[in-house]
Formats: sequence, C-alpha cells, structure tokens
Amino acid sequence: MTRAMVLGLEAVLADGTVISSMNKMIKNNSGYDLKQLFIGTEGTLGIVCKCVLQLQPKLSDTQTAIVGLKSYDQVVELLNLLKSDLAQGLTAFELMWHDYYHKILQLLPDLRNPIDTTEPFYLLLEYRSNDQTNGKELFESTLARHMETGLIENAAIAQNGRDAEAFWNIREGVSELLQIYAIRSNQDVSMPIASIGEFASELENDLMLSFPNIEIFLFGHIGDSNIHIIASNKSEDDCAKITKLIMQKVQQYEGSISAEHGIGILKKAYLDYSRTEAEIQLMKTLKSALDPKNILNPGRVF
Amino acid sequence: MTRAMVLGLEAVLADGTVISSMNKMIKNNSGYDLKQLFIGTEGTLGIVCKCVLQLQPKLSDTQTAIVGLKSYDQVVELLNLLKSDLAQGLTAFELMWHDYYHKILQLLPDLRNPIDTTEPFYLLLEYRSNDQTNGKELFESTLARHMETGLIENAAIAQNGRDAEAFWNIREGVSELLQIYAIRSNQDVSMPIASIGEFASELENDLMLSFPNIEIFLFGHIGDSNIHIIASNKSEDDCAKITKLIMQKVQQYEGSISAEHGIGILKKAYLDYSRTEAEIQLMKTLKSALDPKNILNPGRVF
Repeated sequence: MTRAMVLGLEAVLADGTVISSMNKMIKNNSGYDLKQLFIGTEGTLGIVCKCVLQLQPKLSDTQTAIVGLKSYDQVVELLNLLKSDLAQGLTAFELMWHDYYHKILQLLPDLRNPIDTTEPFYLLLEYRSNDQTNGKELFESTLARHMETGLIENAAIAQNGRDAEAFWNIREGVSELLQIYAIRSNQDVSMPIASIGEFASELENDLMLSFPNIEIFLFGHIGDSNIHIIASNKSEDDCAKITKLIMQKVQQYEGSISAEHGIGILKKAYLDYSRTEAEIQLMKTLKSALDPKNILNPGRVF
Repeated sequence: MTRAMVLGLEAVLADGTVISSMNKMIKNNSGYDLKQLFIGTEGTLGIVCKCVLQLQPKLSDTQTAIVGLKSYDQVVELLNLLKSDLAQGLTAFELMWHDYYHKILQLLPDLRNPIDTTEPFYLLLEYRSNDQTNGKELFESTLARHMETGLIENAAIAQNGRDAEAFWNIREGVSELLQIYAIRSNQDVSMPIASIGEFASELENDLMLSFPNIEIFLFGHIGDSNIHIIASNKSEDDCAKITKLIMQKVQQYEGSISAEHGIGILKKAYLDYSRTEAEIQLMKTLKSALDPKNILNPGRVF
C-alpha cells in the first residue's frame, strides 16, 4: 500500500496555510499523524505538494511462475501457505479467472499458455530475495511440495527473464481487453479474501441471468483483498445497470466499492454501500472543519 | 509499526456516535480512512472499542547474533546491507552503546559478553524465515562476508534458543537499569537514521559538560529511527534540566520528541520542538471539530 510508504508530506490547506510534515522517521508519535488527512482523500482536505517516501532496496533475484488450481478455496489455502513458506518475499499473487486468462491468450496471439492443462484458476506468482543461491531452489521446492499434496494442479516456472515477461504479459493484457470492450463496467472492489470466490461466482450468475449476452472477465490482487471486474454488454445504459448490480453484490459481501481508485464522481452515489451514515457524517465534519467554503475539489467523494 | 497492522476499528465520538469502521480488507479506498483519526491520538478524538488487526504467519526459523562495530557510520552501512541481504527477514536491529551494554553485564552477573572484545557499539540482530534448511546458512554466510570486509569487528551467533535468550536478556536488561536509577530522565526519541550517531555523541558531550556526575545509557531500534536515552543525576530537578537539554538537541536534529510513547502530559510542553505552529493549529482544528466540549482525555497532547 502506498500509504505505508509515505513517511511525511507537505500540504496546502484551503485557507492557504502550508502544513509541512516532512517527517523522515519510521517511528514518530509526537502528536497527531497529520499526513493521514491528505493520503487518499482525493484533494478534498488539502493539496499535497511534496512527500517523503520510504524506499526499500531492490532485490537481485526474482522467481516467477504461473500455476493452475481447481477451486478458489485452494487459492486461499495456497496464499496462506506461501505467506508462511516465502514470508515477505512473496511479491505477487495475481489471480486470473479462466475466462479472463483465455480471452487474453486469444487476443494476443504472441502469448501462449505456459501450462498444458485448462484450469478454472490461474495464478501468477512472484518471489523476490537477494539470495541468488537459494532463491530459485526455495521457490521451486515450495511449489513442488504443494503440487505433491494436490493443492496445485499444474505449474510453469519461468526459466529466464523472457519467460517471466511473457507470464506477466498475460496479466497485463488487461489494457488490450479494455480497448476491445470500450462499452463496459470496469470496477475495482475489495472484500475479505475468503469471500472473494463466492462473491465472484454469485456475481457471474446474477449478471448472466439479467444480461444474457454479457461477457465477464475477472482478475485480482488476491493477497490485497482485491478483485477487478470487467463486464461488457451492448449499451452504456446496460453498463450502468451492471455497475449497480456489482455494487449491490459488494454491499451484500461487506466489501469496499473502491479498492484502489477512490470514489471521485463516478462512485459517489454508491459510497453508502460501503460506509455507514455515521462514517460519512464524520467525513463531512472533517471536510467542513478543514475546508468550510468547500473550495477544494468540490463535488468529489460525497 | 502497530498502525500498519490495524485494518479497521470501532470508536465512540464525544457526542456518543459509534463509528464502526471494522474494515477487513487490505486495500480499501472508499472515502476517508477514518481509523487514522483514532490511532495514536491518545483518546483525544474518540475512544477505540474494537479493532481488526492483520496477522502474519509465525515463522519457524529464528537466527540471532550479537555483533560488535567500531563506529555508528558502520552501523548504518550494515543496516543498509542487511536490509538488502536478508530483505524483510531482518526482524531485529537493536543497537546498544558501549556504556549501556557493559552496565547491564555488570548489573546482571548471570549474563556474559558473548563476544570476546570490547567495542564502542554492540548490535543484536535477528533474522526470521520459514526456511530451516537455508536460514542458518544465509545468516551465517552474510555475517561472515561483512566480517571479511572489516565492517563487522566481531560476532557471536546463537547456537540454540538458550543462547538467543541470553543475547536478548542484555537488551531487555533495561528494566533492571530503570530500577537502579529511579531518579532519571528516560526518553524515547527518533530522528533520521543517519543522524543518530552524531546526535548521541553531541548529546553525551553536552550533558557531561553541564552535569559532571551524570550517567548516560543509550540503546535503540535503529532500523525504526529510534533511540532511547536514560540519563541519571542526583535530583529530580537535575533530571528536568536534562530532559530539556535532550529535547533541545532533538529539535536541533529535526527529530521527534516521542518516537513510541506519545505526548500525554509529560511531553506537552515540548510538542513545538518537533511540530510547527501550523501543525499544532491543525491538530487543534481537528480536536474542536470532533470534541467541541473538550471532554475526551482533556489536557493531553496540546
């Protein structure tokens, strides 16, 4: 999360006051942590002009794989095991549902499926360390162990940087997909990790019942509770209805209507699907206290 | 940092409103991140009643060492190298200055110095992973490499859990020290990691010039920018003067007068040593907006 990397910042308030909180310390408990007022508030409480980011050393060894799994529950089981096996070295856990994965392979003929079976779920995994001697061995032996127990159905490990790039191109093929389906509802939402599988199946069923010709593509940063939904139908009008149905399903699963991209204008009408009336009232209290004339990015968020 | 582990919480506002933000998602950008108002604000904006914490799997392998170094600059160089060599597996980087270390060994005769030389700086290191096969080897070979280059002067690696406990007992001997020196200034402060060494030398010099019989003990979680200072002299009156001198030195180095324990009542008079007038004014704006009758933990922080 970007928030966790921001140590300090400088922001200008609505009345022109410059709040310089350019903290460089990891630990600082001298009064309120004011930077939190400006991170993720979409410019509605102040304008961020500078920031201090905590950097991490670049690690020299990267291992990449695509693995196939039979069920979402197995995806979650594998996530928990890998967080333990690979500790903080697990740097990508990108889930692609069958229809997304094969649509990308069809759209981008230069890409091929690195595993020779068809599975309901494909997972792009990355492990980083600075231990070039043992990194590859640890990653390979870990995946082999989970294949022996039957948790992983099939796996392909990148043998070089070119393989790894080709694996990532499947995941990043989303930009091609968005060009093909210009009329669509494109949502990034989140919910507790264990619920995402059931949410996704129910959502697909509900959408297909209401919109018989709909095409639905799902992928997500599952380790971050996140799922992206691209759903295309014939008209913009359909897409507005699709968006509403997605948001209702997110509400039912106590999820967040925006995992990554904020509320802005487009999701404003749905804010109360994810936040209580008391929470929204508190946001408004903050807004009035800091920007009484409502001049900072007015009309956004609520 | 605890803040980074809190996913959600429930808090009661001054007017009795219950703000339930029991978020369970890693990524959630649906409006303002309200939990940040209540973390570290010492009960002045609301009373936290519940919280959701993100847990991490316990790792099975722990490697522990005490190493001796010749200078603070070498400590920082080693920190940067180990963050790269051991990545996120570096779970402790506890620096003990010579006088602290040897005072603890003298106070607690069951403990012994595991390295056979006397050094200006002693560092307690811990590395955790789930890789029992390679964990020990990686840790040992990493330390050996930094000894060969002369960065580390001397090192002792715990061979079993009993050794590791004995190493930690030196660091944790601080509780004994605080019992012996009941009259003292006991401060936890932070500043940019690279400045801590110079800050500490200057502070020791300044304190010894002003208080000829003073005893000063320094240790800190250097990876978190933190240094603890225990300075004892004859009277409470002396200790108040010592605290003021420490706070002035922190201000001079653009540090934080409280790394971990907050402001409360004891550090209130020094808040403006670490925060600007505009920042303190913004804290007061928040306080007035959320607690206009000033009934929540009044008199704390500012």
